[in-house]
Amino acid sequence: MISVEQPKNIVIVGGVAGGMSCATRLRRLDEKANIIVLEKGKYVSYANCGIPYALGNVIKDEAKLHVQTSEKIASWFNIDVRTEVELVGIDRPNKVIHVKCVGNKSGKLHCDIENISYDKLVLSLGADAFIPTVKGIDSEHVFTLQTIPDLEKIQSYIAAHGCRNATVIGGGFIGLEAAENLRLLGLNVTVMEYLPHIFPPVDHDMAMPLQKEMERNGIRLLLNARITEITPTGSDKPSQILLNGTDPVETDLIIVSVGVRARTAIVENAGIQIGKSGVIVNDTMQTSDPDIYAVGDMVETPHLVSGHPVRIALAGPANRQGRLAADNICGLSANYRGNVGTAVCKVFDLTVGVVGLSVEALRVMGRGDKTKYLTIHPSHHVGYYPGAEPMVLKVVFEVDSGRLLGAQIVGKQGIDKRIDVLAMAIRAGMSVEDLEHVELGYAPPYGAAKDPVNMAGFVGGNILRGLMQPVYAEDLVKEICFESGDGTQKRCLPEKYQVVDVRTPEEFCKGHLIGAINIPLDTLRRSLHLMDRSKKILAYCQVGYRGYLAYRILKQNAFEAVNLNGGFKAVCVGGYDSLID
Amino acid sequence: MISVEQPKNIVIVGGVAGGMSCATRLRRLDEKANIIVLEKGKYVSYANCGIPYALGNVIKDEAKLHVQTSEKIASWFNIDVRTEVELVGIDRPNKVIHVKCVGNKSGKLHCDIENISYDKLVLSLGADAFIPTVKGIDSEHVFTLQTIPDLEKIQSYIAAHGCRNATVIGGGFIGLEAAENLRLLGLNVTVMEYLPHIFPPVDHDMAMPLQKEMERNGIRLLLNARITEITPTGSDKPSQILLNGTDPVETDLIIVSVGVRARTAIVENAGIQIGKSGVIVNDTMQTSDPDIYAVGDMVETPHLVSGHPVRIALAGPANRQGRLAADNICGLSANYRGNVGTAVCKVFDLTVGVVGLSVEALRVMGRGDKTKYLTIHPSHHVGYYPGAEPMVLKVVFEVDSGRLLGAQIVGKQGIDKRIDVLAMAIRAGMSVEDLEHVELGYAPPYGAAKDPVNMAGFVGGNILRGLMQPVYAEDLVKEICFESGDGTQKRCLPEKYQVVDVRTPEEFCKGHLIGAINIPLDTLRRSLHLMDRSKKILAYCQVGYRGYLAYRILKQNAFEAVNLNGGFKAVCVGGYDSLID
Repeated sequence: MISVEQPKNIVIVGGVAGGMSCATRLRRLDEKANIIVLEKGKYVSYANCGIPYALGNVIKDEAKLHVQTSEKIASWFNIDVRTEVELVGIDRPNKVIHVKCVGNKSGKLHCDIENISYDKLVLSLGADAFIPTVKGIDSEHVFTLQTIPDLEKIQSYIAAHGCRNATVIGGGFIGLEAAENLRLLGLNVTVMEYLPHIFPPVDHDMAMPLQKEMERNGIRLLLNARITEITPTGSDKPSQILLNGTDPVETDLIIVSVGVRARTAIVENAGIQIGKSGVIVNDTMQTSDPDIYAVGDMVETPHLVSGHPVRIALAGPANRQGRLAADNICGLSANYRGNVGTAVCKVFDLTVGVVGLSVEALRVMGRGDKTKYLTIHPSHHVGYYPGAEPMVLKVVFEVDSGRLLGAQIVGKQGIDKRIDVLAMAIRAGMSVEDLEHVELGYAPPYGAAKDPVNMAGFVGGNILRGLMQPVYAEDLVKEICFESGDGTQKRCLPEKYQVVDVRTPEEFCKGHLIGAINIPLDTLRRSLHLMDRSKKILAYCQVGYRGYLAYRILKQNAFEAVNLNGGFKAVCVGGYDSLID
Repeated sequence: MISVEQPKNIVIVGGVAGGMSCATRLRRLDEKANIIVLEKGKYVSYANCGIPYALGNVIKDEAKLHVQTSEKIASWFNIDVRTEVELVGIDRPNKVIHVKCVGNKSGKLHCDIENISYDKLVLSLGADAFIPTVKGIDSEHVFTLQTIPDLEKIQSYIAAHGCRNATVIGGGFIGLEAAENLRLLGLNVTVMEYLPHIFPPVDHDMAMPLQKEMERNGIRLLLNARITEITPTGSDKPSQILLNGTDPVETDLIIVSVGVRARTAIVENAGIQIGKSGVIVNDTMQTSDPDIYAVGDMVETPHLVSGHPVRIALAGPANRQGRLAADNICGLSANYRGNVGTAVCKVFDLTVGVVGLSVEALRVMGRGDKTKYLTIHPSHHVGYYPGAEPMVLKVVFEVDSGRLLGAQIVGKQGIDKRIDVLAMAIRAGMSVEDLEHVELGYAPPYGAAKDPVNMAGFVGGNILRGLMQPVYAEDLVKEICFESGDGTQKRCLPEKYQVVDVRTPEEFCKGHLIGAINIPLDTLRRSLHLMDRSKKILAYCQVGYRGYLAYRILKQNAFEAVNLNGGFKAVCVGGYDSLID
């Protein structure tokens, strides 16, 4: 199994997710190899995904983050682990790397610059937190939250300065986790996001419930935030964050989490090919130098939906890539199969899950015209079993083929399950129609005979087969016209729609679309004569099902009709308030 | 879309899951058709999966089980719903069915036997609870638990008779749910199972933790139970259940749940083809008569793993089959794609999930030799995040191809998620090795960078690639020899194994395999000289990982070795107590 000619020296730079997965797999495959792991930081193989939760004392014992110690790795795996050692150069012709000591450590290495020769080199250098160029960003109260030392610095700073107001710059994964955990510490927290909504992997409408949840938990959100300066923190007055078009925000502490950049400088200097966002590797994780592998946050790998190379800074791919590089170094054939971009994030009592591409991302790629989506609001398990929680499930697919392109889910329970099921579907190349057929475990405490995933399949299949034509709230918003008559502005949907609310009068009275008339579904068949045949009917209900039934009745009675995607609830949840009367 | 020549009369017999899904889909597709639904019972479209939970007052309001009323169905769907009407015959040449009134209802039908003509007939007759032929089984205190009237009868009986002791005959899905819910009512509950373990869809080792959980909750289990008679219940003394080889069990109430039999008699009388377990249908749900469709618990459809037709009495397939029959009746091409047999069941604080085939089922099919499996014990999310719960995950696969054949999971949290992910993998035809590559959502509250599903892929991939040779506790049990020397029996594993426990001395002291010596993993490399090279080494640890590391070290040092599948924990969880010293 193992080839006879073994590389003697395998050097791995980076001792956390990808690097350590690679090193331990190498040892399991090759008991004889000389394996050296170099780590710039103090710790190896720690759980950096847990750091935000350690900040909020959700994880109470920081020691728990140390998945494996250097000592255990040495004793179990016979690996030479050297911490606080930094890569400074790669001499490819001589197959030697140059490293130096960092931090306060001394005595372990005999000189500042040491040369280490390799037969195979594995780079798992990770990514640096991106720091925007803003005046004052280098102040002592501005932190990143990537590593255990980062965590310790923030904890010390809060303890020493009695911080009350904290600001998180960036509303992505780490930003949201950081904000929630700072809030759990009792701080007043502001999140500043450059984009029009937080959590950029999802669309605007799916970010709305997350934003409401943040605000419900006392977090202040500043969207479209344009930070111009961070003023110093003084003994008598707090620091201010100055913004374009927004009042300054006082803050005692700032965490910057606006994304990461692959650490590619040394690799690039060594003449190894770099792509748009990271090191280029083939499907064995080999760089343009066949003796040098790269894994984790620093590399680009194919996105199976977009077809483009992407850098995915998540622990799962990093771990699997590290293991896979080891396989290939040891002569086992193993190929990285690309990413579907599955991710999940806790936002207080909500969970958001995402896989594939959002509608917004597809539009940026110029694929908006070929894209449709559907929105449903199922319960995570049958409504008659106690504790059923609603979710919003948005599934994105290709217009003609129905091929699944992405999914986004927000809710309290069962979100991670459905996003994983949809991740499997996307990986298997399924169409939205295929979701009709999938057979998921059902008992009342867990789901429904027609699981939310099946429901998405039913709706998507109907759209594909032309049995239902959806209209989207985001498009209706664009079509609202404003009429000024008596000085007040009156809003209405364009003339082309006859807006029919097929819910009950009680539901209608609580709020409805502007210009809607109420014809409850159970009276629709005998009310057809009331309707204007010259006008397209926009039918809608609460979540889309009765609207679809109405659509079917209308179409088969020769009306032109569309059904509001996701119903009135999608309008409310998605924040399309201007559509509501 | 809809073909011009529509069938005028579509008659659906059976108004619950499959039948009503069919009827409502038919109406959505065809506004003009005459749709009649006949239901033998009082209620249509009720949630029969919730019935056990209504018994235990987990679902407190029985009205919640009525998903849709006849009135709502009539008003929304313009469907002629007739309850308490029973099918008594099918006259296929004349396309007429014979029906009669049942129950106390009168006046709705004008005569006892009415003829209803059909263009298309859809049968969703369901299945009857199987009642074993035991003396006394027809007593008034013996019930089944399938329908709302069943539920009401049991509730009335308990209230009227002040029952204290209840017995459930049958330890499958309904039996376990019934037992748990009777226990929640405060009754003393005994479960009698004919087979050697409860919950037959899983293997013996996976049923063990379920049995412990039942017993922990005060339920008495009688396995291999051979009931010979049920004595009458008198005013002065309770009924007894008499058994072969076991003391009689006193009981006030009996629920029989030993499976169901498809209702095929009328169909068979009409000359429609019947298979081994139900009505034969093609992938459009058409019976051997092209104008007659059949769906749900009464039909056989292909099992994608076994390739054999199976009857699956679950709500999910029934609903999807009903909908699909409607599609085909209305000229939409839609094909049933077969079953993977996904199921999930709550057993007090545990959840058991299953998909595909068990090892036991594969052996019965003569496929045992071509089958391997792996057992792992991951946490449902990372251990450092609060609330991590362990699970036992068993994955069954084909020896050569690695094709996934089945999975079984038991634990407290995240079970339904992983079984659904594995159901998707099996449906997509994946191999165990493919599980290495799947990309599931990870954040600390939800999973791990290496999800349990990935871990199963890693272990399975190692077995397939010959990097690890597992040995199974169930095989070791067969290999134990008994030596009687000084009168006491001494047990040891056969001579062929040198049993090496690579855990810490502390772990070893708490319990270990018989005949094991303790060589902790971190001392193994320097202890190789202590080992007997003439003997195969059985390495093991707590859950299998350190055992695997030991295996790799030993193999690469030219020892013969095997690793205990799932480690010592699998021995304990699986109930292989005879292996423990």
